[in-house]
Amino acid sequence: MLAAYRGGRSERLPVWFMRQAGRSLPEYRAIRERAGLLEIGRVPELAAEVTLQPVRRYGVDAAIFFSDIVTPLQAIGVELEIRPGTGPVIASPVRSARDLSALRRFEPAVDAPWLGEGVRLAVAELDVPLIGFAGGPFTLASYLVEGGPSRAQTRTKALMLSEPLTWRRLLERLCDIALDSLRAQVQAGAAAVQVFDSWIGSLAPEQYERHVLPVVRRLFDGLSELGVPRIYFGVGTGHLLELIARAGPDVVGVDWRVPLDAARARLPGRVALQGNLDPAACLAPWPVLEREVLSVLERAPERGYVFNLGHGVLPESDPAALARIVELVHTFRREAAGVA
Amino acid sequence: MLAAYRGGRSERLPVWFMRQAGRSLPEYRAIRERAGLLEIGRVPELAAEVTLQPVRRYGVDAAIFFSDIVTPLQAIGVELEIRPGTGPVIASPVRSARDLSALRRFEPAVDAPWLGEGVRLAVAELDVPLIGFAGGPFTLASYLVEGGPSRAQTRTKALMLSEPLTWRRLLERLCDIALDSLRAQVQAGAAAVQVFDSWIGSLAPEQYERHVLPVVRRLFDGLSELGVPRIYFGVGTGHLLELIARAGPDVVGVDWRVPLDAARARLPGRVALQGNLDPAACLAPWPVLEREVLSVLERAPERGYVFNLGHGVLPESDPAALARIVELVHTFRREAAGVA
Repeated sequence: MLAAYRGGRSERLPVWFMRQAGRSLPEYRAIRERAGLLEIGRVPELAAEVTLQPVRRYGVDAAIFFSDIVTPLQAIGVELEIRPGTGPVIASPVRSARDLSALRRFEPAVDAPWLGEGVRLAVAELDVPLIGFAGGPFTLASYLVEGGPSRAQTRTKALMLSEPLTWRRLLERLCDIALDSLRAQVQAGAAAVQVFDSWIGSLAPEQYERHVLPVVRRLFDGLSELGVPRIYFGVGTGHLLELIARAGPDVVGVDWRVPLDAARARLPGRVALQGNLDPAACLAPWPVLEREVLSVLERAPERGYVFNLGHGVLPESDPAALARIVELVHTFRREAAGVA
Repeated sequence: MLAAYRGGRSERLPVWFMRQAGRSLPEYRAIRERAGLLEIGRVPELAAEVTLQPVRRYGVDAAIFFSDIVTPLQAIGVELEIRPGTGPVIASPVRSARDLSALRRFEPAVDAPWLGEGVRLAVAELDVPLIGFAGGPFTLASYLVEGGPSRAQTRTKALMLSEPLTWRRLLERLCDIALDSLRAQVQAGAAAVQVFDSWIGSLAPEQYERHVLPVVRRLFDGLSELGVPRIYFGVGTGHLLELIARAGPDVVGVDWRVPLDAARARLPGRVALQGNLDPAACLAPWPVLEREVLSVLERAPERGYVFNLGHGVLPESDPAALARIVELVHTFRREAAGVA
């Protein structure tokens, strides 16, 4: 797994699933009957258990630490709740320079001792690498500015265009929060880190380049000191791939809209790829799903590649289907004549 | 306007806005206080009035007939409502071959005499062309299959992958509905037609090519008999541009994620462009908005181009800002040395 993230090649292809922990698993829903989503994050035993569940069930090659993108915000005192069927809702949205004071520095050891403890407990039980989890600056900013999830992040972009200095300071604070959170996770045993900047796909290339890329580059520069593979993922980023690579990640998560061979051709050789089965395909009967998985594998690069979905596991996915995908990926043998 | 759609060049650039009629206008909200959205469509005088409002206020170079994407579905008996804050909600979603029987042929003269009448009333008052309006097959299918709006159209794609024959029959019926609706609008005086296939951007190129493109091509073939410019628009379609052109429209609506010069380079010369200001930019103060409009204009092609937003007008947009955009576009003079 880690070798693949560093550009290497192994006989057996590594695989894990974004959002592999969570609502698609009955054993997760059993825990959720007694604990809220944010509460799970604050109880190390529960966070570790939920992190381990998909590894036990699927035999995937990595765990990803179970957390919500807004967890560190709550830990520094931002008032929010996860509303069922909606997502995170922020009590006081951030829409001016004055509102930035709500975003103080995140000190995991003080603000969130349960974060490192949860990672340590999970790592102690795991025989596969644990991936640290954090939200990307634009995506976190969009929740803060909109006050919750939004289709097109229009208020966020209006702030970005109208008040570039406030915007830059907001993003830099969120960059530091992600950096401090991921550093704590690596110090506790995480062997790789993934930055989920899910909603950057709503930006035009020029917008991303001018208003987001410099901060994301600072984030990946900071992460490089941790000495672990650094993954960057966003949805609908086909028009941003080259810029995303310039942010400096070791691995780019590709969504299902860009075939892997096309992504490979557009990205520098030093960057490994992760992806990119359409999560909707997991809702189809196995013969259809099998064909879709094989279609991804046939376009996948020979080296520097980890199988994943092109976005998170859908809550209505059948766990048995995900288990069969893992088996298929693990037994898939690439032709000697495959793409190098 | 029509000359630009046919690839021509005029001294004054033509401009209109997707969703220029509707919630951003106080005079529309006044009408909505006494009539529901679908009701407006069924009262020719109201539909015409709402269609005319933005032309009077902004001096745009085209009207677009005010209608909802699901209007023809309701006219053939599909039970649905527009739920405020959500969108169209379908009482009995279409999820199997059996459910297709709900989708009989749309006969505008019988099922929706108010459609042609509304267009005729609007055209009689207008001194600019009226554009006919219809939903694209994939997008209409997604509302029918999901039962309402959806972020990623996952059930829709699962049906598409799992039951390709049912899917094809569903799309062909929706293609016929769009064709019959647009034919009625042109017969009543519409001088161009736009197919809003808003959600196709959630498809991978291979998915679009195999499961959607053949039907959209049939739609544009059918529309060619009407002898008016045919526009095709979807959101987040940067990865599909070449395929979209293969569907055969005269004009491609480009969203804000693909710079117009890049879109121009990727599309065949016979295709005109429309777009692509980020609707979020309209929420910014005028100096910022002005810069964004100029940035679009500077990347726009010399010929075969109509200014528009990259998606619909946001409800919270200030009508005064839209009026200033029209003025700026109309007074913009392209350099003689501009891109040909």
